[in-house]
Amino acid sequence: MKGFIFDLDGTVYLGDRLIEGAAEAIQELRNRGDKVVFLSNKPIATRQSYAEKLTKMGIPTTVEDVLNSSLIAARYLQQVMTPTDKVLVIGEQPIRDELRAHGIQMSEDPNEVSYVVLSWDRQFTYDGLNDLYQAAIRGAKVIASNPDRTCPLEDGQIPDTGAFIGALEGATGRPIDLVVGKPSPIAAEAAVRHLGLDYHACYMVGDRLETDIKMGNDTGMNSVLVLTGISTREMAEQSEYNPRYILNSIKEIVNL
Amino acid sequence: MKGFIFDLDGTVYLGDRLIEGAAEAIQELRNRGDKVVFLSNKPIATRQSYAEKLTKMGIPTTVEDVLNSSLIAARYLQQVMTPTDKVLVIGEQPIRDELRAHGIQMSEDPNEVSYVVLSWDRQFTYDGLNDLYQAAIRGAKVIASNPDRTCPLEDGQIPDTGAFIGALEGATGRPIDLVVGKPSPIAAEAAVRHLGLDYHACYMVGDRLETDIKMGNDTGMNSVLVLTGISTREMAEQSEYNPRYILNSIKEIVNL
Repeated sequence: MKGFIFDLDGTVYLGDRLIEGAAEAIQELRNRGDKVVFLSNKPIATRQSYAEKLTKMGIPTTVEDVLNSSLIAARYLQQVMTPTDKVLVIGEQPIRDELRAHGIQMSEDPNEVSYVVLSWDRQFTYDGLNDLYQAAIRGAKVIASNPDRTCPLEDGQIPDTGAFIGALEGATGRPIDLVVGKPSPIAAEAAVRHLGLDYHACYMVGDRLETDIKMGNDTGMNSVLVLTGISTREMAEQSEYNPRYILNSIKEIVNL
Repeated sequence: MKGFIFDLDGTVYLGDRLIEGAAEAIQELRNRGDKVVFLSNKPIATRQSYAEKLTKMGIPTTVEDVLNSSLIAARYLQQVMTPTDKVLVIGEQPIRDELRAHGIQMSEDPNEVSYVVLSWDRQFTYDGLNDLYQAAIRGAKVIASNPDRTCPLEDGQIPDTGAFIGALEGATGRPIDLVVGKPSPIAAEAAVRHLGLDYHACYMVGDRLETDIKMGNDTGMNSVLVLTGISTREMAEQSEYNPRYILNSIKEIVNL
């Protein structure tokens, strides 16, 4: 039995358009008894919304089939926080909801938090930056949901969590403590544990060398680059992150 | 004849308190025919306000005796911009006023600017970050007023322009084009030209190793660290930026 961990945007769909053959390929994997999970770094949408989107596109998906950086952050904090610890969140409603659903105590006061979750926030302000900085210099551990510099939209890209990481590091002069989304081994472990398989039985399938492929390689999974998203064959050949397989699209996944 | 370039906060005063003996020392330099100019990286106050503050503290100062990163940015842009070029500004009113006084055309539209001035802005928002990012990836040159990570206040520090530089670099993955404030040689040249002297006849006097002392050393000035601000003798001994002179305070400057 094999396990397939699929990135979403650029791998299964592009914006609102399904990659041709994706639904059939995933159905064939499921029919033959392989396991499938979806793993997204995007912290501004709920797992439920991804499940609904995939289902509408012809890939029947439950919320349990979807892992994202918000869920991984919530589970990580559950493991490391004590009952009196509180966390300051820079992020939008979906990640706050996910943390709350996992019983994580939040606070807006940088003086009383022992953790900061740093995520994509399109309402980010200087006051938020200052809270973040004050919490960090007082010793709170800073955990980023994902390291993505930008998020692609239909007509361009806009700054993602990587910009906020840069802002904090620009103020403190030192790196943040941890990223839990791809390419972190914490994200890999969440996916592999979800599938109930060993790393070497799993295939990490995605379109980004520096997240999907790096994480697959770092953890001993089979890394699979699809050329339907952001990375090209030339980029893969010049990169330090060499995919084990390169496919024109997810359609070819059934041949592995 | 010698020229003295004085940093302000931490060197001449600490917040609202004059460093003991500063007024007398500067008066003695002036009496013996040496030249004095003040050079600040801080982009959120006007040169006029510094001149008034120094005058009230017993150091008679005109606006022409004060250089700051806003003025240096304005003069730099005057030299490099063509009449049709426009600049997007992330910054507060004083730097906008300084640019306007130098005839620099500004625009809020990231699509039509060929330069970005990136400065400290306590009203910074995600939309501003996105404008900044869009201008930068469309090829606008990004000029920062100053590189300071934080600005010290009486009860702590808050994020300065270095945080915004980090945010943009975090989104683009590449360094900004230029910093004009200290330790940039552009700031040194502005001060030395203002004094009308050669670099080797000038003394750069300040409390920060990575700005004041670095710039003095890089440009062949005599660098002078005063121990009344942020850097200690131990920090100077361990730093790659070795001051030529270390003084307990500005009071001893008359002995050089």
